[in-house]
Amino acid sequence: MANQQGLVSRAEDFNEWYNTLVLKADLADYGPVRGTMIIKPYGWALWENIQRALDWRFKATGHENAAFPMFIPMSFLEKEASHVKGFAPELAVVTHGGGEELTEPLAVRPTSETIIGHTYARWIQSYRDLPIKLNLWNSVVRWEKRTKLFLRTLEFYWQEGHTAHATAEEALAETRQMLDVYTDFARNEAAIPVIPGEKSENERFAGAEMTLTIEAMMGDGRALQSATSHFMGQNFARAFEIRYLDANNELQYCWTTSWGLSTRFIGAIIMTHGDDQGLVLPPKLAPIQVIVVPIFRQEEERTRVLEAARAIQQELQDNGLRVKVDERDNLTPGFKFNEWELKGVPVRVEIGPRDLQNETVMLARRDVPGREGKESVSRSGLVARVQELLAAIHDNLLERATQFRDSHTVAVSDYGAFKEAVEQGFARVWWAGSSEDEKRIQEETRATLRCIPLEQPGGEGTCFYTGRPATQIAIFGRSY
Amino acid sequence: MANQQGLVSRAEDFNEWYNTLVLKADLADYGPVRGTMIIKPYGWALWENIQRALDWRFKATGHENAAFPMFIPMSFLEKEASHVKGFAPELAVVTHGGGEELTEPLAVRPTSETIIGHTYARWIQSYRDLPIKLNLWNSVVRWEKRTKLFLRTLEFYWQEGHTAHATAEEALAETRQMLDVYTDFARNEAAIPVIPGEKSENERFAGAEMTLTIEAMMGDGRALQSATSHFMGQNFARAFEIRYLDANNELQYCWTTSWGLSTRFIGAIIMTHGDDQGLVLPPKLAPIQVIVVPIFRQEEERTRVLEAARAIQQELQDNGLRVKVDERDNLTPGFKFNEWELKGVPVRVEIGPRDLQNETVMLARRDVPGREGKESVSRSGLVARVQELLAAIHDNLLERATQFRDSHTVAVSDYGAFKEAVEQGFARVWWAGSSEDEKRIQEETRATLRCIPLEQPGGEGTCFYTGRPATQIAIFGRSY
Ligand SMILES: [Zn+2]
Ligand SMILES: [Zn+2]
Repeated sequence: MANQQGLVSRAEDFNEWYNTLVLKADLADYGPVRGTMIIKPYGWALWENIQRALDWRFKATGHENAAFPMFIPMSFLEKEASHVKGFAPELAVVTHGGGEELTEPLAVRPTSETIIGHTYARWIQSYRDLPIKLNLWNSVVRWEKRTKLFLRTLEFYWQEGHTAHATAEEALAETRQMLDVYTDFARNEAAIPVIPGEKSENERFAGAEMTLTIEAMMGDGRALQSATSHFMGQNFARAFEIRYLDANNELQYCWTTSWGLSTRFIGAIIMTHGDDQGLVLPPKLAPIQVIVVPIFRQEEERTRVLEAARAIQQELQDNGLRVKVDERDNLTPGFKFNEWELKGVPVRVEIGPRDLQNETVMLARRDVPGREGKESVSRSGLVARVQELLAAIHDNLLERATQFRDSHTVAVSDYGAFKEAVEQGFARVWWAGSSEDEKRIQEETRATLRCIPLEQPGGEGTCFYTGRPATQIAIFGRSY
Repeated sequence: MANQQGLVSRAEDFNEWYNTLVLKADLADYGPVRGTMIIKPYGWALWENIQRALDWRFKATGHENAAFPMFIPMSFLEKEASHVKGFAPELAVVTHGGGEELTEPLAVRPTSETIIGHTYARWIQSYRDLPIKLNLWNSVVRWEKRTKLFLRTLEFYWQEGHTAHATAEEALAETRQMLDVYTDFARNEAAIPVIPGEKSENERFAGAEMTLTIEAMMGDGRALQSATSHFMGQNFARAFEIRYLDANNELQYCWTTSWGLSTRFIGAIIMTHGDDQGLVLPPKLAPIQVIVVPIFRQEEERTRVLEAARAIQQELQDNGLRVKVDERDNLTPGFKFNEWELKGVPVRVEIGPRDLQNETVMLARRDVPGREGKESVSRSGLVARVQELLAAIHDNLLERATQFRDSHTVAVSDYGAFKEAVEQGFARVWWAGSSEDEKRIQEETRATLRCIPLEQPGGEGTCFYTGRPATQIAIFGRSY
């Protein structure tokens, strides 16, 4: 039963709440081809803020952006055995170009390791050419019939980093560094707590030696893999002959990595912070940080109040904030409050004739509903107070998401308690099971091994499933 | 015969000069699939600066960015008659997805008018929903076998703006406004003078009522269409039922526009300003505006000079400039000078032990070769002087390109003089010919009607080709 926002409650039907909210908040829409997504301006502005927040972190760690073709010869994909096995079933294949049948069909890139491998092999001659550290912002295609906007679409947008190094140590350090960049981004830009860890063999990227991941808990207790960083060892270097002459003039294979974060992360933002009134956007990434709603009854108040609203917008913008004034005259203030709450704008400024008189302004913070989240501030103190509020909202969102996750993560030591735990969140277990054990657990409980957290308690315990001695803690959960 | 930069001179072989320079300057490389292009970091950074310069202009004129799927159902393309005729021969077609043959093949977008038309028809109900003013940054595919990096590739990167309006006047004003944005961008960011004008019917976009263009003259006298803005009238509105209820509750067709600028523009920058030593990049778009080259002979000078070079970099960066210090120790200063000249960096700073003593720095501007382009400045006055130089270089490049164009644009009144004029530049003519006349002229001289300049002298003349009275001046030339 939908509330006045036209949203069913999360508790009632989390999936329905998500699907309706994405459309109502104007983040995205379904494309005409099954499985495809149109990202509308509000959703794209959120993605552009995510891009900016990641881009300077990539540049600060010595990476450069570049662009590679979307078409990859099928023969390239077949060069790395497990890679092709992983992606072959998901490919979109171009068989005709310029009105003619192609001699070799072309895949639309599902990811670019193969065309990067082919090209790095041509570019790299000597150790002086290393490391190569590139990042690509583009869209990739992995065939998908069931659409869930941002979470599962045929085409999605992402960044894919690809690096080549002279030594395993350097490549491993790169793999970990980029996971740390994602962790820092998730916490400090999106206010999302994540568990950085290593994937088991089952869940590893097709062609990788090791996959690191950051796992977040959504509002329904399920896990979302929010970004991954892969150490490829020399798998792609051998498959594509990516070699260099070392200082002793001997030919060596390179060590490579790749790492990516996609528009799936927007799904994580929606489901981590969103509530029954709609989105709750983390202030640093929100396309609109402050919405100014002018309130007036008589006509002659209109001009004065609008003028004051625009002055507020200007002053806040001059202080680097993203601000909009809702001047639509065919809607009531109440309707506007609901709409901008639905769209998750962190701070609302209400300005009416009374405020003009008292030289005050009413602020409402999105993360604390009702009276408790409202405060009247002096017009002169507005900018400083808004900046404080935005910072406080970020911290509150991070704190709340952390508490929710921790309160829905249960340490268990037997299969019964495990089954209960994964019904409503993560199970934290000592783990010494095999890939087959993992598969059986998934079949029986739909829970998968989310990661082996990088942060381990040390010492020993007993594997909850096999009873064998275990030296590692693992996180299990149902996932998106 | 290549000079010490490994470049043949432009006069000797302009095409060879271009193809070698793009590779040597590390702007781009050929992709493994024939017709495709890899844009390397230096080329992509140039494109990112172009994106930034256009993006704020689009936002300042009320547009929002969004993203549409790359796959378009073939049936969509067939809905607008002349559109499909124009693009059908250039399509890349996906016939298999997820391992199955598709019931309806999908085109990889050659441009997005059709999927936009389909979607706007769903989104637009009332006049309150108008105007819709979106811009998309993406890549498009138009089949191409002969590759010329940036100028003719199977996949290229661009922005495509798409707007829908309630009236023809508003759509026409939008079409002209966006051409003015392109003209302003070309002059004030890229230092490229352009002729804004209208395309003849022959050269119009497939499905447009009117196409406006900005034409630039390359270093070999040939024209390059550097951006276009199309008034679609109601062609796509009728083809896709893009309608709205007006204030009297009557259903009306919308009026639409689309406008685009692509990585072809990087080709225009290369060929407008480049010289026999390599690229000459306009300062506002150059990825590296200032290159600092440390010069030292003995080892103990090394640390002091490097420190000074880094301090210079820091100070210039603090003033918003893009600066690099070339610290490579395996290359001579002379080699470095040549390389950064080839890469068209506007200003070079040389810093050695003598400079440290005299508290001076040697500056070299890329647009004025040899001694004449060098000056010694005080270390304290460095920042101010560099900023002046960058502005002067921009103006000088614009001035030089304008003089070159004007001196290679000849007003002619007969076919003989016309043939000579288009051998080395533009012919400016009174024009009253037909589409057939245009085609014949093209067959005989390879020259096409570049545009009917928006700026017309008025009055009357005699058509150089048909002898009929003419009220319009046209620009003809051979083109890329
Ligand atoms: Zn709960
Ligand atoms: Zn000449």
